[in-house]
Amino acid sequence: MPEYSAKKRFTASPKPAANAFVELKRPERLIKLLRQLLTSGDERKIESMLVRVHPADIAKLITLLKIEHARQLIRILFKLRKGAATVSELPSGFREELLEGLDAPMMAEFARRVDPDDAADILEKLPEERLQDVLRILDIEEVQELRALMAYAEDSAGAIMNPEFFSLRPDISVDAATEIIREQGEELREVFFVFVLSEDEKIVGMVSMREMLLAHGDSLLGDICDSNVVTVTPDTPEETVADQMAKYDLVVVAVVDNEDRMIGVVTVDDIIDVLKEAATEDLYSMVALDEDDRVFSTPGRSVALRLPWLTLNFVTALAAAFTVSMFENLIGQVVALAAMMPIVAGMGGNSGSQTLTVVIRGLALGELQPVNARKAVLKEVTVGVLNGLVLGAIGGLFGWLWKGQWWLGVLLGSAILLNLCVAALGGAVIPLLLRRMRLDPALGSQIFLTTLTDVFGFFAFLGLAAWLLPRIGVI
Amino acid sequence: MPEYSAKKRFTASPKPAANAFVELKRPERLIKLLRQLLTSGDERKIESMLVRVHPADIAKLITLLKIEHARQLIRILFKLRKGAATVSELPSGFREELLEGLDAPMMAEFARRVDPDDAADILEKLPEERLQDVLRILDIEEVQELRALMAYAEDSAGAIMNPEFFSLRPDISVDAATEIIREQGEELREVFFVFVLSEDEKIVGMVSMREMLLAHGDSLLGDICDSNVVTVTPDTPEETVADQMAKYDLVVVAVVDNEDRMIGVVTVDDIIDVLKEAATEDLYSMVALDEDDRVFSTPGRSVALRLPWLTLNFVTALAAAFTVSMFENLIGQVVALAAMMPIVAGMGGNSGSQTLTVVIRGLALGELQPVNARKAVLKEVTVGVLNGLVLGAIGGLFGWLWKGQWWLGVLLGSAILLNLCVAALGGAVIPLLLRRMRLDPALGSQIFLTTLTDVFGFFAFLGLAAWLLPRIGVI
Repeated sequence: MPEYSAKKRFTASPKPAANAFVELKRPERLIKLLRQLLTSGDERKIESMLVRVHPADIAKLITLLKIEHARQLIRILFKLRKGAATVSELPSGFREELLEGLDAPMMAEFARRVDPDDAADILEKLPEERLQDVLRILDIEEVQELRALMAYAEDSAGAIMNPEFFSLRPDISVDAATEIIREQGEELREVFFVFVLSEDEKIVGMVSMREMLLAHGDSLLGDICDSNVVTVTPDTPEETVADQMAKYDLVVVAVVDNEDRMIGVVTVDDIIDVLKEAATEDLYSMVALDEDDRVFSTPGRSVALRLPWLTLNFVTALAAAFTVSMFENLIGQVVALAAMMPIVAGMGGNSGSQTLTVVIRGLALGELQPVNARKAVLKEVTVGVLNGLVLGAIGGLFGWLWKGQWWLGVLLGSAILLNLCVAALGGAVIPLLLRRMRLDPALGSQIFLTTLTDVFGFFAFLGLAAWLLPRIGVI
Repeated sequence: MPEYSAKKRFTASPKPAANAFVELKRPERLIKLLRQLLTSGDERKIESMLVRVHPADIAKLITLLKIEHARQLIRILFKLRKGAATVSELPSGFREELLEGLDAPMMAEFARRVDPDDAADILEKLPEERLQDVLRILDIEEVQELRALMAYAEDSAGAIMNPEFFSLRPDISVDAATEIIREQGEELREVFFVFVLSEDEKIVGMVSMREMLLAHGDSLLGDICDSNVVTVTPDTPEETVADQMAKYDLVVVAVVDNEDRMIGVVTVDDIIDVLKEAATEDLYSMVALDEDDRVFSTPGRSVALRLPWLTLNFVTALAAAFTVSMFENLIGQVVALAAMMPIVAGMGGNSGSQTLTVVIRGLALGELQPVNARKAVLKEVTVGVLNGLVLGAIGGLFGWLWKGQWWLGVLLGSAILLNLCVAALGGAVIPLLLRRMRLDPALGSQIFLTTLTDVFGFFAFLGLAAWLLPRIGVI
């Protein structure tokens, strides 16, 4: 009997389509019916309605229900053996709220039925007491596996890897390997690759099912396997893993420990989730939102997450207010300045936001690196100067015509030009500085930028006025 | 001899790792050396330096070079037969600039060597005259295929599908199929699935390599194939295809025409690119950036793409200016109002941006649907009221202490509260309205929102002052 690792029951290569799924064309109708059935408690009808629907689609439906109905439905789904798969498809935020309504046996069944990385991800958000209740129900081996996964940092390869994969020794023949795969049956239905490991669990190579199909039955896996296996360590950031898989068009990467022993796999379906998460984080961090702050988080939670940054924003807004207050005397003499100054600040804020977005996105996609950062800043400032010249001219013309005073036009036009240059510089430099400080380059950048463009915009406009107006005898 | 579709040379299922690739640990050093070698024109050394580097990594290096060096390097890569693969990995924006330096024979070789969908994607951006030069070199069959792909809408399944896939008839045995795959050799190295099609090209099912490996040699493909194949049409939006693949964890979907005949496949590696593109678009459209406006687009191009929206922004900024100018008289009497009004506008802008971002992201991820839109608006307004109460209190206290006038505190606090409520309402409703109008829900939303929070913020603050101050005898 050939040797193979029995503990690792199956690999988590990309899953084929569910055997039966009905796509939801008209969620509004379905949801109406579902609400009625849940209110009347007609479980039989609900079961027959949902038995052919894919868990991912059921998850979409659940988010449209109120929380009591959602919990009731999840309990029915667990009876149908669809509860675990459905929960793992729920959007985070909503999921945590829903899970508070599940008892420990349900959570344990959930932990057993979904991929261990998904289970660990969800269990680690439970309060310690509830977690203990769930772990008590599971086998010691399952608990050890989950504990190990929960120990990895949240956004690392360790946290998204699946510790269960299929591996064989290099001296096994293709025929023998085929026999083993046949014996494992259903558990291996998602296998695209077999990993070939030496006795000390080091990677010799990987063999695709296609290569096995085409090879002679008595060839040894060690001879036909491809030794170019892309590996990462458990502490590799998940976004780096995603970049690697996207760059080399991979469907699976191997995770190895410090001694090069293989301990898990990360598959392309996990990476798709990472990419979606990353897109959310990029957008969120620009306006200093926490990633747990979702459209259906409770209001209390959203307030708690947003208030600290908004309070900081209040403090930065004071900087703009103090800048204006330095010129109160001037404004009292020429009140038109107060009406025009928001134009300068607003134009700077919006054009700076464009630069900021381009630079943050360039950093996220890896197009912008330390080595070409200077080039990027120079380019954006050039754009700022050119846009500033055009918009300054438009602003100047308008400022002159509005009150028929040429000097208002000169002030407005020059201040727009200056503020657009500073906005471009700020929009390019703020994310680069944050990155240099080893922070998320987008973190709160929108708030820092608008502070800059407000303060500088007001200062440029009112400062120029304070210099020019006495000289031409207006005040 | 069993029947199979010879025209369709290979499927485009996910590609395994390149046979040899060296990852770039220190691009700064490499790029310095490369610059020296390109300047001295030492092609032999460049070839030996890059022969083992993966095209995706070479593409990263190229973006760090100046354009003349980049073009020189691409010509060397074409000699190494690595040019085509490298070009298809280049970030858009940079790629278009680079291609201007390639002659028609190189472009034709490029079109032959990359996946047809990638080739079509790049060729359709060429000026018509240059395109003709390239197409003249290609075979009539290649031209027809490319023309057909270029005819599909830019962001549709048709534009990203690969018309080349591997298909067999249902009455072929597994042994015969294996023999065919063996004969096709290298061209089929990326196959994970065989599509089983009837005589009229309709889908009977698909068979994975694993299923073929485990089946009896004389089983017929029609009997062992899985008939649950997820299909899309060429005009399905690419983001819908991505959602389907992500939701059902697929590695490939079939594209069928109006008569259900299979015409191509979309694979998971294309979808990863779609997801990255989609993330860029979401960020970009909030600040009205065009997707071709990248960190290294030429300044002239960036200016041309940004100026129209910034000009619109100038017009909307005038609305804020006119709002203030209605109260010039009042500001002349109480100049402190001019200093405080940016606080109200700034707080509204930043808290509204948070709501806007949460709602846009909720729409993009499908968590927010028409059926639960009202709930989302209500939640965000609740958050706005709660944040407004806290920040209004802080603002009120500050306004009172700054100048020692209680009524300045009342005005600042109430205006902050009111503006945060309006900001939340606007941040939630603007994207929903844009979506209702069948526009991108993020399109220019940041600009519309700051216009709203500026205009309303100034109006609330100064309007309240105009009402209150005469009544308490301050003016």
